Amino acid sequence: MLRTIYLDNNATTAVAAEVFEAMTPFFKDRYGNPSSMHLFGGSVHRDVENAREKVAALIHADPSEIVFTSCGSESNNAAIFSMAETLGHDCTVITTRVEHPAVLQPCRFLRDHGHSLVEIGVHEDGTLDMDEYKRALEMPGKKFVSMMWANNETGVIFPIKEAAELAARAGALFHTDAVQSVGKLEEVNMSEVPVSMLSLSGHKLHAPKGIGALYIRRGTPFKPFLKGGHQENGRRAGTENVPYIVGLGKAAELAAEEMKNDTARIAAMRDRLQNGLLKCPDSRVNGSLTERLPNTLNISFEFIEGEAVLYHLSDNGICASSGSACTSGSLEPSHVIRAMGVPYTAVHGSIRFSLSRYNTDADVDAVLEAMPGIVEKLRALSPFVNK
Amino acid sequence: MLRTIYLDNNATTAVAAEVFEAMTPFFKDRYGNPSSMHLFGGSVHRDVENAREKVAALIHADPSEIVFTSCGSESNNAAIFSMAETLGHDCTVITTRVEHPAVLQPCRFLRDHGHSLVEIGVHEDGTLDMDEYKRALEMPGKKFVSMMWANNETGVIFPIKEAAELAARAGALFHTDAVQSVGKLEEVNMSEVPVSMLSLSGHKLHAPKGIGALYIRRGTPFKPFLKGGHQENGRRAGTENVPYIVGLGKAAELAAEEMKNDTARIAAMRDRLQNGLLKCPDSRVNGSLTERLPNTLNISFEFIEGEAVLYHLSDNGICASSGSACTSGSLEPSHVIRAMGVPYTAVHGSIRFSLSRYNTDADVDAVLEAMPGIVEKLRALSPFVNK
Repeated sequence: MLRTIYLDNNATTAVAAEVFEAMTPFFKDRYGNPSSMHLFGGSVHRDVENAREKVAALIHADPSEIVFTSCGSESNNAAIFSMAETLGHDCTVITTRVEHPAVLQPCRFLRDHGHSLVEIGVHEDGTLDMDEYKRALEMPGKKFVSMMWANNETGVIFPIKEAAELAARAGALFHTDAVQSVGKLEEVNMSEVPVSMLSLSGHKLHAPKGIGALYIRRGTPFKPFLKGGHQENGRRAGTENVPYIVGLGKAAELAAEEMKNDTARIAAMRDRLQNGLLKCPDSRVNGSLTERLPNTLNISFEFIEGEAVLYHLSDNGICASSGSACTSGSLEPSHVIRAMGVPYTAVHGSIRFSLSRYNTDADVDAVLEAMPGIVEKLRALSPFVNK
Repeated sequence: MLRTIYLDNNATTAVAAEVFEAMTPFFKDRYGNPSSMHLFGGSVHRDVENAREKVAALIHADPSEIVFTSCGSESNNAAIFSMAETLGHDCTVITTRVEHPAVLQPCRFLRDHGHSLVEIGVHEDGTLDMDEYKRALEMPGKKFVSMMWANNETGVIFPIKEAAELAARAGALFHTDAVQSVGKLEEVNMSEVPVSMLSLSGHKLHAPKGIGALYIRRGTPFKPFLKGGHQENGRRAGTENVPYIVGLGKAAELAAEEMKNDTARIAAMRDRLQNGLLKCPDSRVNGSLTERLPNTLNISFEFIEGEAVLYHLSDNGICASSGSACTSGSLEPSHVIRAMGVPYTAVHGSIRFSLSRYNTDADVDAVLEAMPGIVEKLRALSPFVNK
């Protein structure tokens, strides 16, 4: 069987062996409900709280500020709808044109239900249009911001510390979708960056798909999205997903321990991949080369279709992506790449490679070996190439 | 170590060994995102769809009518808020006084945001006040119903087929919270019972905590609760929780295969437990003896506190409950027991035993041995007993 070369870690990551091991007892003997009155269930409560401490530690928060959710998308929905409910119907929602659909859709829903919406643009390298953002904050009336920490498609990092400080000064609540940044950037530090709320997702950092968390800074008004039982201190109804909560705790602990080492090694592999691929003629990196996640490379090969490249890579056992898995199946070019004003000859040919601590130099070698032939073959078939 | 005698299966159940086995590959090599364009992720999509078929088969639905969610509470929230959004702001919400908090809270939220709310009462045996329900359906204007199939605390079954038919005749959408009924009652059959939507939960039928599903009958208008990505055919955003979806599929398959045999055996154990416990003086079953889940016994011991009984049972390794785990921690007596008009001398002393296919006669023996001494001891201390 072909070896799998997995370079799609912004879509989802492998579950760490240590995470699986930590979860296993809760799929077996320790299946109690942590809300139960008996010792069998109640003893599990302690494990949930231990996990909360580990997740809090990763982002330098207090455990009481962490609410477990079912995924990053739920965290984003919960944050945005809570801010809207708290502020009332005449407020302004400020976001950016390059957010994940789990932010953009809730914001556009609010626009369709009586709120004002401003979507801030980005420069050609994907960085935030700070002037536009500042102007939006000067608008009169109540407002809140939802702005991603780093872009899932390009890895471009927004200046969240500065943006959150400006929002605070303008009296606006500030949420950040940090799904791609937590465990990758040491700057994700709640003792230094004054965001009101932050979303994170387990399956982007080697916990399973189906668990996330929402950080809610102490004192931030909050209305539960999922309404019902008293779980999560009244902030999220539903029986606690104990195995995954424990798994997310373990994944957070691993990330905190290894982030510094992992980051340097991953960035070195990513840079070697980038430099090798840029040797293909008519290729270009999408997004800033400096303000960028260490693990992400978004690169366009002009005149060809990204999806065709992906199929050929897949034939070689290589997993990459043309953008967000959350929008795949759509034939539209990525809204992120379009917002950056990438030329039309390149907009369909963007490929995202995203690495993790489990990648090796051999993975990079495999891509560098396969790609030139794929690009050449597809260009030979392309009606757009000037032959 | 004390053997655990687990009789709290309405709170949560053990994960079946077969379910854990089915999930395990997806925590290891098969971690791909089912929405990915590469074969590694895409191949997982088939497993998700197989699971959907199994869940659909359990309730005699079409696979396209099943949407996976993160829990029963999410399914309930999604159904109720979708119906409200579909019908608009001037509609009437009809529910019952004994629903789970994950139905009652969303309904009361709607009441506080411009909708009318009618909460139907129950008789002393916990059965539905059908006259009151019929009168509610006669109210003018748009309306929808959310009514549980079986009560989590007492096991009392509502006549959902009749109620759904009446709602259909009145032009009302009808949702049922069937979290406690799916896998326990063969009548939960979507080809015979005309509900619009139905909630189910994995961890009530030996899948893990953190997975649920919402049945949406074809043609029912639906607006997503979790907004964002295109997953679940645009009906629920968020990367699919593949391991748990596969686990829920396996659990549904096991339930479908074993329901008939399990039900008879479980009911026989429950009846022996009931008859034995009723030998305690001043004890009474709460809820109908006939219209009741086969696995549930809610019994009051007058003049004593249910929580004290639970602690003593727990000391004997026996896990039971005083009501819903979703409201535990509250010192208020159960809203279900109060709605039934249980006398005040008994309202604090209700204990729920709930069985599963993994219980044995020895478990029943252990309770029957322990309980008389516990009741006697607590009554000796009670200020309410007429000594």
